[in-house]
Amino acid sequence: MSSFTHLDSQGNPSMVDVGAKNITERIAIAESRVQLTDEILSIFSEGELKSKKGPVFQTAIIAGIQGAKQCSNLIPLCHPLPLTKVGIDIKIVGKDAVIQCVAKTKGQTGVEMEALTGASVAALTIYDMCKAFTHEMVIGPTYLLEKHGGKSDYERKTP
Amino acid sequence: MSSFTHLDSQGNPSMVDVGAKNITERIAIAESRVQLTDEILSIFSEGELKSKKGPVFQTAIIAGIQGAKQCSNLIPLCHPLPLTKVGIDIKIVGKDAVIQCVAKTKGQTGVEMEALTGASVAALTIYDMCKAFTHEMVIGPTYLLEKHGGKSDYERKTP
Amino acid sequence: MSSFTHLDSQGNPSMVDVGAKNITERIAIAESRVQLTDEILSIFSEGELKSKKGPVFQTAIIAGIQGAKQCSNLIPLCHPLPLTKVGIDIKIVGKDAVIQCVAKTKGQTGVEMEALTGASVAALTIYDMCKAFTHEMVIGPTYLLEKHGGKSDYERKTP
Amino acid sequence: MSSFTHLDSQGNPSMVDVGAKNITERIAIAESRVQLTDEILSIFSEGELKSKKGPVFQTAIIAGIQGAKQCSNLIPLCHPLPLTKVGIDIKIVGKDAVIQCVAKTKGQTGVEMEALTGASVAALTIYDMCKAFTHEMVIGPTYLLEKHGGKSDYERKTP
Amino acid sequence: MSSFTHLDSQGNPSMVDVGAKNITERIAIAESRVQLTDEILSIFSEGELKSKKGPVFQTAIIAGIQGAKQCSNLIPLCHPLPLTKVGIDIKIVGKDAVIQCVAKTKGQTGVEMEALTGASVAALTIYDMCKAFTHEMVIGPTYLLEKHGGKSDYERKTP
Amino acid sequence: MSSFTHLDSQGNPSMVDVGAKNITERIAIAESRVQLTDEILSIFSEGELKSKKGPVFQTAIIAGIQGAKQCSNLIPLCHPLPLTKVGIDIKIVGKDAVIQCVAKTKGQTGVEMEALTGASVAALTIYDMCKAFTHEMVIGPTYLLEKHGGKSDYERKTP
Repeated sequence: MSSFTHLDSQGNPSMVDVGAKNITERIAIAESRVQLTDEILSIFSEGELKSKKGPVFQTAIIAGIQGAKQCSNLIPLCHPLPLTKVGIDIKIVGKDAVIQCVAKTKGQTGVEMEALTGASVAALTIYDMCKAFTHEMVIGPTYLLEKHGGKSDYERKTP
Repeated sequence: MSSFTHLDSQGNPSMVDVGAKNITERIAIAESRVQLTDEILSIFSEGELKSKKGPVFQTAIIAGIQGAKQCSNLIPLCHPLPLTKVGIDIKIVGKDAVIQCVAKTKGQTGVEMEALTGASVAALTIYDMCKAFTHEMVIGPTYLLEKHGGKSDYERKTP
Repeated sequence: MSSFTHLDSQGNPSMVDVGAKNITERIAIAESRVQLTDEILSIFSEGELKSKKGPVFQTAIIAGIQGAKQCSNLIPLCHPLPLTKVGIDIKIVGKDAVIQCVAKTKGQTGVEMEALTGASVAALTIYDMCKAFTHEMVIGPTYLLEKHGGKSDYERKTP
Repeated sequence: MSSFTHLDSQGNPSMVDVGAKNITERIAIAESRVQLTDEILSIFSEGELKSKKGPVFQTAIIAGIQGAKQCSNLIPLCHPLPLTKVGIDIKIVGKDAVIQCVAKTKGQTGVEMEALTGASVAALTIYDMCKAFTHEMVIGPTYLLEKHGGKSDYERKTP
Repeated sequence: MSSFTHLDSQGNPSMVDVGAKNITERIAIAESRVQLTDEILSIFSEGELKSKKGPVFQTAIIAGIQGAKQCSNLIPLCHPLPLTKVGIDIKIVGKDAVIQCVAKTKGQTGVEMEALTGASVAALTIYDMCKAFTHEMVIGPTYLLEKHGGKSDYERKTP
Repeated sequence: MSSFTHLDSQGNPSMVDVGAKNITERIAIAESRVQLTDEILSIFSEGELKSKKGPVFQTAIIAGIQGAKQCSNLIPLCHPLPLTKVGIDIKIVGKDAVIQCVAKTKGQTGVEMEALTGASVAALTIYDMCKAFTHEMVIGPTYLLEKHGGKSDYERKTP
């Protein structure tokens, strides 16, 4: 592929015409993370914290699901898609809250941006809920883990 | 500060009551980036590319501005705010497209999440517009650079 | 059915994966009502009132239709659906404005929540348009009357 | 008050001009409820259930807060308002999940509809999360409990 | 004024910073129209028609009010504003449905785009409701009639 | 066709039930324009101007695409549709910025309103970006150029 599919011949923004593409089951999984601080982590691991992690992560899960559904309103050249599934999973790994977002549809174009948007909005929500402790948190790296069902599959190699 | 401001005493999600806070000029600046690949960078630096960077970045700028305005619809416990300014600046630094988003309001609560959301949506849009070339791009790190006008100012120390 | 379909095995909110369900014609009808006061009813039955009922109910009909289309943005675990029909009917029955909302789609999941949301938003709109007279109005009961086209049909028994 | 404030002299829908009203602190509290069935209640009171009530109610709390923020997009003649607080509280009382929604602003018009919308969307969300068990649930009655800060205060008398 | 306020020095889209502007009462009135065909006009003037004009125009009024409230989500560089009034008036003048939209706010920037957007969405809605008869309708001209309250007032000269 | 498809037998607003219509490829093209002033045109044709036309038109293109996707949220009786393509093209013709918007879907109802909405929002955006120079601009005429794929095709005759 040697040109920008989202720009027309004059260099103007252009939505891809997906009308001729096959209707297939499409899935994409994206990952983001919030690099927490020791202060926040200690709260999450103490007794008091354990009880807090539930609602913080659940709020982020819901925000991420809603965010994935807003993808085509946020990313200008994305197509509106009837998503059949959005799932968000959040785990503490080391010092990070690691978010995985899976998006699925049965349609004519892929759902990578929906998965990436869902993961990003979940990360922003965790940040929002912990920001009273510190602003030293960092969001990312955020990337696509895999996608299937389109013209070409993709699986991220282990870093 | 020793507890989650976004959880009530029973651990349920809770929006902060900002009704008693002062109305002040508030500003926040956030940074995100998209780590591009050599393939994409070479397209951006060639003649053909130079003409493409404009519309790619301008689309991302507009998406970021619109995204910042959607912040309180995306992040569940954010307050709706009449933003007086959202600005997005994008530069190629090394191999990265570096995005800075400034948000301003005259209100009772800060605009950190608006700045972070604007920067994140701009980054997602650059990813979307370049993804026909490769899915090896990585978004982030994304963080707050500075904020002013609230109870406490913040400036990120150089890494 | 013995578990929450909207919670995963760890108790976190989870959207049902409807990708494997059949695409069928689906219909749902929900009912809500606004219990009006004698003051409002008298206005609606007088000459002056008759001419007012039209625009009050028409505003509620439009709001209800628009509300049903917003269902998946309002109810976190609902799927976005291409609705083929939303209809709202409002009648005065006794002292109540009785609202029926029908929703239809050709898809992989039902439209109960769309019908309930449409009826609820129409009821809220009637309340809004009459609230200058009194706040003694009561909305509800709101319930599903029937649904068809999915794995199991439902018809409400007369109370 | 003897006429519809939301209709003009020709009977057409009309938004009230609040430009000349005082800017005051305004608060409104609304209540809704979901009448649950014995089956759902037994699940909520068993061990398995106890762990489920958290995420069901937390999802409803977040949906209700987001719904209140969408009020002026849902109810045609409502004004967009910079809400300073939305709070949702949900309790099991008898066989009902009882929802209270408080909304606050510092502005030129009241927040009754925001509170009623927040409570209604939270109720719809509880319905959605429990509907795999039964469709015999009933939403309502939904009403305003109190409002303060405008031209006239209101407090609902005990039924 | 000699440069584009919505482009920065590098030619990128840029929202104006209105933080330093005075908070004043601002009003704008815009006009649009739908040029109807004889067929539609005859329906509107017959007995059958008279009863139809009400709901067609009322639907357009509500859509226009809601559209004006969506202005900052539709027009990328517009600021979100707490509108204190949106009013839509529609009259048959000659062969045209003439729409006037007034928008008001108390804020730091004008409401011309809100008025123009409200008038345009009302016009599109009339078109939608009459398009089963013919697609020969034409929308426009659409223009600003007047605005007051900002740095400079404007009143359109009679054509 | 001899009656309003968007009104029911009682004259209330009513969404057409498209559930029984065929799923076909549908396309519609609409045109709008902004009548610019000599002052703005001179800026666009000078050297300084040439560099400005890009970002002004690109912002309008993106706004128009996003606007077309919002059609069913703006026009009350429109169906939500999974658009497969929205394209916006803008040219200076004489003293006008002429906008063409093409919309496509594979569905049960046409996309005329999506095309007209996209063209209108793009026109409003050009107006917004040039309004610091003058408010003497006029938007329109806006009309449908052609549509195909439904029960009846349409092509506008040359004026």
